[in-house]
Amino acid sequence: MARRRLVYEGKAKILYEGPEPGTLIQHFKDDATAFNAEKKDVIDGKGVLNNRISEHIMTGLNEIGVPTHFIRRLNMREQLIRAVEIIPLEVVVRNIAAGSLAKRLGLEEGMHLPRPIIEFYYKDDKLGDPMVTEEHIAAFNWASQQDVDDIIALALRVNDFLSGMMLGVGIRLVDFKIECGRIYEGDYQRVIVADEISPDSCRLWDVKTGQKLDKDVFRKDLGDLADAYSEVASRLGIMPRRQGRAAAGPKLVH
Amino acid sequence: MARRRLVYEGKAKILYEGPEPGTLIQHFKDDATAFNAEKKDVIDGKGVLNNRISEHIMTGLNEIGVPTHFIRRLNMREQLIRAVEIIPLEVVVRNIAAGSLAKRLGLEEGMHLPRPIIEFYYKDDKLGDPMVTEEHIAAFNWASQQDVDDIIALALRVNDFLSGMMLGVGIRLVDFKIECGRIYEGDYQRVIVADEISPDSCRLWDVKTGQKLDKDVFRKDLGDLADAYSEVASRLGIMPRRQGRAAAGPKLVH
Ligand SMILES: Nc1ncnc2c1ncn2[C@@H]1O[C@H](COP(=O)(O)OP(=O)(O)O)[C@@H](O)[C@H]1O
Ligand SMILES: Nc1ncnc2c1ncn2[C@@H]1O[C@H](COP(=O)(O)OP(=O)(O)O)[C@@H](O)[C@H]1O
Ligand SMILES: [Mg+2]
Ligand SMILES: [Mg+2]
Repeated sequence: MARRRLVYEGKAKILYEGPEPGTLIQHFKDDATAFNAEKKDVIDGKGVLNNRISEHIMTGLNEIGVPTHFIRRLNMREQLIRAVEIIPLEVVVRNIAAGSLAKRLGLEEGMHLPRPIIEFYYKDDKLGDPMVTEEHIAAFNWASQQDVDDIIALALRVNDFLSGMMLGVGIRLVDFKIECGRIYEGDYQRVIVADEISPDSCRLWDVKTGQKLDKDVFRKDLGDLADAYSEVASRLGIMPRRQGRAAAGPKLVH
Repeated sequence: MARRRLVYEGKAKILYEGPEPGTLIQHFKDDATAFNAEKKDVIDGKGVLNNRISEHIMTGLNEIGVPTHFIRRLNMREQLIRAVEIIPLEVVVRNIAAGSLAKRLGLEEGMHLPRPIIEFYYKDDKLGDPMVTEEHIAAFNWASQQDVDDIIALALRVNDFLSGMMLGVGIRLVDFKIECGRIYEGDYQRVIVADEISPDSCRLWDVKTGQKLDKDVFRKDLGDLADAYSEVASRLGIMPRRQGRAAAGPKLVH
């Protein structure tokens, strides 16, 4: 393959210039980070799994008319996406109390929230992605009121779709994070879902056992992260369940 | 005076049953606390100053039609107030970046914000008064949407009035906190300003020198707190400037 221009390398992914204007190639690395990159590791197979899972979810979203950046998968680790002007917010939707919400508001982990709660975090690693409100977003012009309204509408639709998809395979969608961006089509501007939707950016609990099938396995050292993600991928019918590390079977090629 | 029933003792004030139903007596103590009561002291004269300053500000607010709980001052440390059903939110309005906002969002202290920013903190000492958004407020029903709309309207009017009052005496209103509560008048419910508005609950900087005339003097050990509050009271024409502790003059009687 011809040398590609690197556009951005982040904690989990690399963006390269795409084959056509307005496109990018999103490459999923095996790097795992948590707690604002204080905890780091390389998890063999994670990039392949997230590439496939994000493809699966975004394809579904595109089909129900929730616009995403996803165009098509290129290979095991890469997908073609529409280049967007990223809105510097992590948009979190929560259905069940967990993580920082439970801690900050003194809620019991696992408590079903009376309604989904949307939160915004300003995407800035140096500041530790502080939680912000619509007041801060407006004052510093990180997004217009129209952008925020669009983001909220997208986030709620993603929540409905993803809750359904997961519940269909016995997984509870506890919470998730999305990033959104603007695309320009002539005079017309639209907000679409970008980045990734994967077990890296969701909390997913097995409905029956409560077992965590997401990045908390890494954050809290609960076991093999790739096994957990592989469980999600296999239930969704994306990839066969991989052999656990302990097992002697052939290694998944990627 | 007859023995009065104590209703609540907080960090800075005591509430006693009032002389008529629907009233309370608010007593201002000399206790100063900061950092969620990790830092504590008794500041001789603070209660008297805050009682007078809060009276002055709330009387002005009542006059311009911003409803407050303040009825009348009873003595140097006490005021008669309307009992309200407190909404468990600290409502912060910020005009200039300082304190936690500057730190969390990486802003320079003293930066004029592009527009006033309203923030809500859930009033719970055990949790350290976490910042919350309208989403959390709605989900946990701490206030109705109508309450929140009323609170925002009150907070913005207090900001305008208090900015004017302070600027008139050479003081910049950097930010302040209010608490609001509900009163019931027959079938009718209203939200009014409660608690106190004083240098304990504002950031006040001298326009010319930038000198801090508020609780940051205590938080950051910048000098004599009562001297700073006395400077505010004297500029507002409420009380004569008190003799500093170093001076040999007669001690303020209270
Ligand atoms: N469609 C897109 N167009 C432009 N940038 C995108 C798009 N999708 C995601 N991004 C950005 O690309 C980066 C993805 O790499 P990642 O490793 O997640 O980075 P980070 O460490 O900044 O979170 C993110 O900064 C994300 O905001
Ligand atoms: N008008 C009012 N009616 C009922 N409660 C009030 C009123 N005004 C203030 N309060 C409450 O009274 C208490 C005042 O005492 P304070 O020392 O400030 O307490 P705290 O340590 O809880 O902040 C606060 O909890 C405040 O919410
Ligand atoms: Mg990222
Ligand atoms: Mg108080």
